[in-house]
Amino acid sequence: MEKGVFITFEGIDGCGKTTMQGLCGQLLESRGKRVLLTKEPGDSDFGRSFRQMLLHTQMGEMNDATEVLLYAADRARHVDKVIRPALAQGMVVLCDRYLDSTIAYQGGGRGVEMDLLWRINDFATGGLSPDLTFYLRLDVEQMASRLSAGKDRLEKEAPRFFARVARAYEDLAARFPHRFVTVDANRPPEEVFSQIERKITEFFSWS
Amino acid sequence: MEKGVFITFEGIDGCGKTTMQGLCGQLLESRGKRVLLTKEPGDSDFGRSFRQMLLHTQMGEMNDATEVLLYAADRARHVDKVIRPALAQGMVVLCDRYLDSTIAYQGGGRGVEMDLLWRINDFATGGLSPDLTFYLRLDVEQMASRLSAGKDRLEKEAPRFFARVARAYEDLAARFPHRFVTVDANRPPEEVFSQIERKITEFFSWS
Repeated sequence: MEKGVFITFEGIDGCGKTTMQGLCGQLLESRGKRVLLTKEPGDSDFGRSFRQMLLHTQMGEMNDATEVLLYAADRARHVDKVIRPALAQGMVVLCDRYLDSTIAYQGGGRGVEMDLLWRINDFATGGLSPDLTFYLRLDVEQMASRLSAGKDRLEKEAPRFFARVARAYEDLAARFPHRFVTVDANRPPEEVFSQIERKITEFFSWS
Repeated sequence: MEKGVFITFEGIDGCGKTTMQGLCGQLLESRGKRVLLTKEPGDSDFGRSFRQMLLHTQMGEMNDATEVLLYAADRARHVDKVIRPALAQGMVVLCDRYLDSTIAYQGGGRGVEMDLLWRINDFATGGLSPDLTFYLRLDVEQMASRLSAGKDRLEKEAPRFFARVARAYEDLAARFPHRFVTVDANRPPEEVFSQIERKITEFFSWS
């Protein structure tokens, strides 16, 4: 059975993950790959419930445990019903946020014990790790200017929160160099994408 | 500040938990206590979403990780928004199913690693343990005759599943004798309740 490829897009809010995911999908399809674009939270059959709980709850109205466990449950369903079936069919799965977001936001941002987060999420994913992770590194000051005033609960957090999130992403990139590709997301979109395109070309051994 | 009392009702499906919870509530109110009747899953503000996902999904259509994490997230919200606030007001909280249900059903029934379940649930509850747990011990054969053919996903499980659940409850009762009170639920309801009433009277030092 053909084995798919699992690629994730990570970074702080406003870094351009969704745009890059879309461009990456077009590139791969133009090269004959079957591509699935998906995201977390909320892209399984349970998605509507999760999005409602996670993104429309007032800031400060959800404790850390509830938030971590909701994201993990959403991820477990997403891996089980969406990601694994697509990979089993040999597709390239492009996912906007995955496990590293939990480590960065709940671990780095909120200070939840990292070891517990890894354990819960290893259980949620059954150990499914991305083959490639594009980390779109954006300065926190840049983020503030890109985002309009507070779109959802998370985006209303303070800059200090996002500085901690960014630091956690740096630690992840250092810890998992075999899959992390750090891209400078402060550059204009076309330059950001050309960095991604180069890596994709190399990964699939296109010449 | 007055400190409330947290009492849970546990046992396999059909054991009469809900009936006993109601009778217990009446008894406590007649003695002047302020009582909150609540249940898991689905009695927080997120309840509707959780019930929909947990109880209306076809059997075999949910993997263990999703199930465990959904119950844990529901519990985290329930503890945070319902149980702790009521206890802080000095109420007696009577809860139909709590942490022991996870250990019995997902641990005993499905074979999920017990240590991981405890860790996840300790995180979910912030370590909140019941003061008293009524375990309504019902024979699995009795259960089958009490339940009409399959009401929801869990109740459609095989008798062998429920035998494992029952064994896990016995282990819990042996491990936590300070809070577990085992009651013979094969008896008629009035006899079951008189066992509970005796224990409640003793617990609150009523004479």
